[in-house]
Amino acid sequence: MVHGTQITLQSEGFSDIHDITDEVRRIVRDSGLRDGIACVFNIGSTGTITTIEYEPALVRDLQEHLEKVLPHTMRSHHSATWGDDNGFSHLRATTMGPGITVPFAGGELQLGTWQQIVVVDHDNRPRQRRVYVQVLGE
Amino acid sequence: MVHGTQITLQSEGFSDIHDITDEVRRIVRDSGLRDGIACVFNIGSTGTITTIEYEPALVRDLQEHLEKVLPHTMRSHHSATWGDDNGFSHLRATTMGPGITVPFAGGELQLGTWQQIVVVDHDNRPRQRRVYVQVLGE
Amino acid sequence: MVHGTQITLQSEGFSDIHDITDEVRRIVRDSGLRDGIACVFNIGSTGTITTIEYEPALVRDLQEHLEKVLPHTMRSHHSATWGDDNGFSHLRATTMGPGITVPFAGGELQLGTWQQIVVVDHDNRPRQRRVYVQVLGE
Repeated sequence: MVHGTQITLQSEGFSDIHDITDEVRRIVRDSGLRDGIACVFNIGSTGTITTIEYEPALVRDLQEHLEKVLPHTMRSHHSATWGDDNGFSHLRATTMGPGITVPFAGGELQLGTWQQIVVVDHDNRPRQRRVYVQVLGE
Repeated sequence: MVHGTQITLQSEGFSDIHDITDEVRRIVRDSGLRDGIACVFNIGSTGTITTIEYEPALVRDLQEHLEKVLPHTMRSHHSATWGDDNGFSHLRATTMGPGITVPFAGGELQLGTWQQIVVVDHDNRPRQRRVYVQVLGE
Repeated sequence: MVHGTQITLQSEGFSDIHDITDEVRRIVRDSGLRDGIACVFNIGSTGTITTIEYEPALVRDLQEHLEKVLPHTMRSHHSATWGDDNGFSHLRATTMGPGITVPFAGGELQLGTWQQIVVVDHDNRPRQRRVYVQVLGE
């Protein structure tokens, strides 16, 4: 029993963070499945799916941490070669990873109370992002 | 065919590391399934599931590395706002990720000999941690 | 419906990067399944599976970034204890994670055009790497 849905969202880049927990929860409920997993995957090489306590102060902390480790002003061979200035975006995405898989039981995602599923868009320009949510279960 | 189990464990925090390989292995065997995946997910926003060669020297190396990149003494907007002093815990968890999915075949987890499944509790106080293991297969 | 395949590849280590997208795509097609997930997992504690825009400049950027954060010359308790000099390899693998799960729909992996599935071998010597690809779906 598999149910797939593509989510799209508009983002600003520079590790812009979007809470998609409610959408994933709705997709699981709409599937009619009771127990299984939701595989949440960012389509494209400059975005990440992870979990965070989604509140403004921590969102800012994450952005500042990424800016320190992989600043948007860093030189990169990628940017020098292709002229798109987003080497830092790719490195943030590749090191954090493109997706996560979240279990659900009795129709409910097994998340903590202050744990949200988020898309982090590391790119360096506003764009539409696509996220695929594949639900498997019974 | 889906079998879900919640594991609980007592931890000390500050990236305390717990080997749960035997418990995941037992859950897979108890499911009676031959081939599939075990989705291992930390419930809560300050813990990580990953794999490591679980031996004391490397455990210490990982803790020292995290202390260097995201020290427990770091200032954070999160800690300043909420007064819980665990901004570093959240950032460690969000960058390392909340869970992993491990394949099994013939009833056996497809791990290397020196590769263990671990919970890393990044929080800043002793607490009970909950991990959900969702097994899917046939 | 589960189909498992083990891929082997020869690698050089030091975060050597191998594009396995075509092999994963072929495994999904050979499974005959239309919709589901491909769980791609590195067997062993010194390798990572992630996605990247696989082109030489960015590959070099990733290797330089890892060399900066966790240099192959770093001292580690692991290397001091076991004499195998690959503490950095373990830390790179554990922080980046051992595997990813990629959805497919209509038989096609839901990847971006410039997003490839790669094995990153962090070890410090040439070796054969094993990757398990578990496909579940219907």
